[in-house]
Amino acid sequence: MAQPAGTTEETSGAGSAPVWTAGRRPRVVIIGGGFGGLACADGLGGIEADVLIIDRRNHNLFQPLLYQVATAALSPADIAEPIRKSVGRHRNISVLLAEATGIDTAAKAVLLEDASRVPYDILVIATGSDYNYFGHDEWRQLAPGLKTLREARMIRQRLLSSFERAERSDDPLERRAALTTIIIGGGPTGVEMAGAVSELGRYMIRRDFRRIHQDEMRVLLVEAGPRLLAAFPEELSHYAEDYLRSIGVEVLVSERVVAIEPGSVQMGDAHVACGAVVWGAGIKASPAAAWLGLGGDRIGRIPVTPALNIENHPEIFCLGDTALAMGEDGQPLPALAQVAKQQGQYVASVIRDLTRGRAQPRPFRFHNRGNTAVIGRNAAVFDFGRFRLKGRPAWFLWAIVHVYLLINFEKRVLVSIQWMFRYLTRQRGARIIDEKPEFSEGEEVPLASAAVRR
Amino acid sequence: MAQPAGTTEETSGAGSAPVWTAGRRPRVVIIGGGFGGLACADGLGGIEADVLIIDRRNHNLFQPLLYQVATAALSPADIAEPIRKSVGRHRNISVLLAEATGIDTAAKAVLLEDASRVPYDILVIATGSDYNYFGHDEWRQLAPGLKTLREARMIRQRLLSSFERAERSDDPLERRAALTTIIIGGGPTGVEMAGAVSELGRYMIRRDFRRIHQDEMRVLLVEAGPRLLAAFPEELSHYAEDYLRSIGVEVLVSERVVAIEPGSVQMGDAHVACGAVVWGAGIKASPAAAWLGLGGDRIGRIPVTPALNIENHPEIFCLGDTALAMGEDGQPLPALAQVAKQQGQYVASVIRDLTRGRAQPRPFRFHNRGNTAVIGRNAAVFDFGRFRLKGRPAWFLWAIVHVYLLINFEKRVLVSIQWMFRYLTRQRGARIIDEKPEFSEGEEVPLASAAVRR
Repeated sequence: MAQPAGTTEETSGAGSAPVWTAGRRPRVVIIGGGFGGLACADGLGGIEADVLIIDRRNHNLFQPLLYQVATAALSPADIAEPIRKSVGRHRNISVLLAEATGIDTAAKAVLLEDASRVPYDILVIATGSDYNYFGHDEWRQLAPGLKTLREARMIRQRLLSSFERAERSDDPLERRAALTTIIIGGGPTGVEMAGAVSELGRYMIRRDFRRIHQDEMRVLLVEAGPRLLAAFPEELSHYAEDYLRSIGVEVLVSERVVAIEPGSVQMGDAHVACGAVVWGAGIKASPAAAWLGLGGDRIGRIPVTPALNIENHPEIFCLGDTALAMGEDGQPLPALAQVAKQQGQYVASVIRDLTRGRAQPRPFRFHNRGNTAVIGRNAAVFDFGRFRLKGRPAWFLWAIVHVYLLINFEKRVLVSIQWMFRYLTRQRGARIIDEKPEFSEGEEVPLASAAVRR
Repeated sequence: MAQPAGTTEETSGAGSAPVWTAGRRPRVVIIGGGFGGLACADGLGGIEADVLIIDRRNHNLFQPLLYQVATAALSPADIAEPIRKSVGRHRNISVLLAEATGIDTAAKAVLLEDASRVPYDILVIATGSDYNYFGHDEWRQLAPGLKTLREARMIRQRLLSSFERAERSDDPLERRAALTTIIIGGGPTGVEMAGAVSELGRYMIRRDFRRIHQDEMRVLLVEAGPRLLAAFPEELSHYAEDYLRSIGVEVLVSERVVAIEPGSVQMGDAHVACGAVVWGAGIKASPAAAWLGLGGDRIGRIPVTPALNIENHPEIFCLGDTALAMGEDGQPLPALAQVAKQQGQYVASVIRDLTRGRAQPRPFRFHNRGNTAVIGRNAAVFDFGRFRLKGRPAWFLWAIVHVYLLINFEKRVLVSIQWMFRYLTRQRGARIIDEKPEFSEGEEVPLASAAVRR
């Protein structure tokens, strides 16, 4: 690509280095304040550059615990932190609440939804992923996934409302349907949801409901492939399946969902009437590949060099779920928080080196901290590659690791206490059904600007 | 009124006693699961009667701390408890999530929104109050009050979004407008909101924003009467006003709001452009008086006897904000949580006596536990009648009392810890702006019933 005149840095190596105009503080723009984007920003605090994080949400979400919001064990604020708060102490980092809609690579600018442009010298794309409905986007409304607080609250709302409807109904078929939850996708999200919904429902019905019985409740976990937790060793898949069956979850493998309608899911020829449906059957990358005019791979990921920048655009880095980065085994790195986080830290170190005039970045290497999924009370699986853990020891380790990974000390304390109460009482603290809206909440009251300018 | 045949109990006294058919467990129906309704239900646990609580919300709300949800200090679940969970341990108490729309006093049945009927032998009306817009119900959407979690979340959303818009704007007038918050009503809610918004905004701007300055922020507290906190002694009103001014709040007394439009509030001839508007300027009772064919007083309250039942309907009790009950001084008892709670306990004791064949209830007597309002960090007022407290001692007492009054031990621990962090760091933990809705959250997916019956 054409280099602007007067560039001061020029390096080569694994993806040759970004450049910027001399005599001016370089501008680093990060799109996306998730695990990768924030880890990168955190590594850029105090450097000789102006850093801007653009996100359409004002908060970073600790997605691994989002299923606990959906099942009323935690509150949204326990796992969400304002991006401004995370980076507030670094005076060289600003935050912009806006939606990126494109990238002008020639002019080096990010395009926003209001058609304004944000210039960059170095760009970091960390826009994550979304659930993949495999061409059936109309299913999204009927079967929300677990990517945002809004979806988690919606699932919570539907689950709790279904129990209330069942308690009120005199029709056994309607009660049975309202008490049936179908979870689509047997990956970690699906397994976690199935365990949590089963435990939430059975205990809650036994203690707090009078007319429905816990045996009327069904939780179906539907997986199209031959086994649950396909990314884990078979031994752990079987353990998860056995455990889920033991707490009453109906596990259906090699079973494909062919239709989702209001109040029912069709698998093969069978229509199963249900209350809530949850989607966790696969992800696709954010649309950032299209912004760059690239095709992306099968699920839209952008191929990156070993230094995590884009071929022919050394000034553009890409990381996390949206990047197609290869591991040492030649396989694409998985869409995991730990991958995004390590990549963010790596990209920050590369950018820091550049601002100090150093170059020649070593290629990114992923250090596997272990892959885990929690299945229920006292049950989880851990895969460290060389060794595996399951059952209560894995569950303990899972809990400790996830508290440790939480956003800050306050949230660690709050979540630990709530888990202790959950564990001791089996009761869930956040069983709130929101009131019927008198007027829409998402709706914005037009700001004064018009009135002021009048 | 006509008594059904075969009644076994008959008593006289302060409002003669309810009666029910012999040989059948009496049915007690409580409409409303607020402070009063739940206190009553709690007192009826284990008695020889079937108790049913009807509420359109599934949770009881600790309204005194709702302003902290609106200002991002606490999460909704910290101050809300599922009604089922509160009464779950009493096997004779059931809960129905439904909206009452009327009462058929002749047939002794509560009418629900789906036209079904719930029969009662004894009825307790504890339906609370709503904000009074004094004939301007179109203001509700522009200036939400603080009665429900939905409103609190909406106010939080508008406050935080306004700061974001200001940070993004280049127009000084638009920035100024977005950074102006107008709070209407100088009672405890207004005073609490004014103090909290001012403290939230100033600290947040200083630490986490880059382009706006804390001096651009305005908080206006508008009161139509001559002083703030009219229910408190003058000395405490003046203290509150002085304190609020010292933290930058503009206090306008004897000032009447004549119009609210999107983005501006008109007081007298002055239009003030603003971001968020909060309403706390007076309440009115729930529509229960109309259900009974009664007129109610000026704000719709139902006159009750000294035993808290309704003239000519000894089987109907009414309590809390919806009841017009007289204190020993001949003045109506105020709309306070402690009044509703004591009345609920009293009505429960009367009903318990009735089930044991005792009668002759002593009239209800209100024991004043002190009236309080918090103004800011280290500042509150307490009025105990005989003596008063203000400043830091009052603030300490306020905090201790409110933690103690919280719904259960878990919430006490969680709120204490969050307040400790708030106090030490001045940062607020729950600064979440919800994502733009892709589809409406309140919207319900139709349940399977239709599909099942097909």
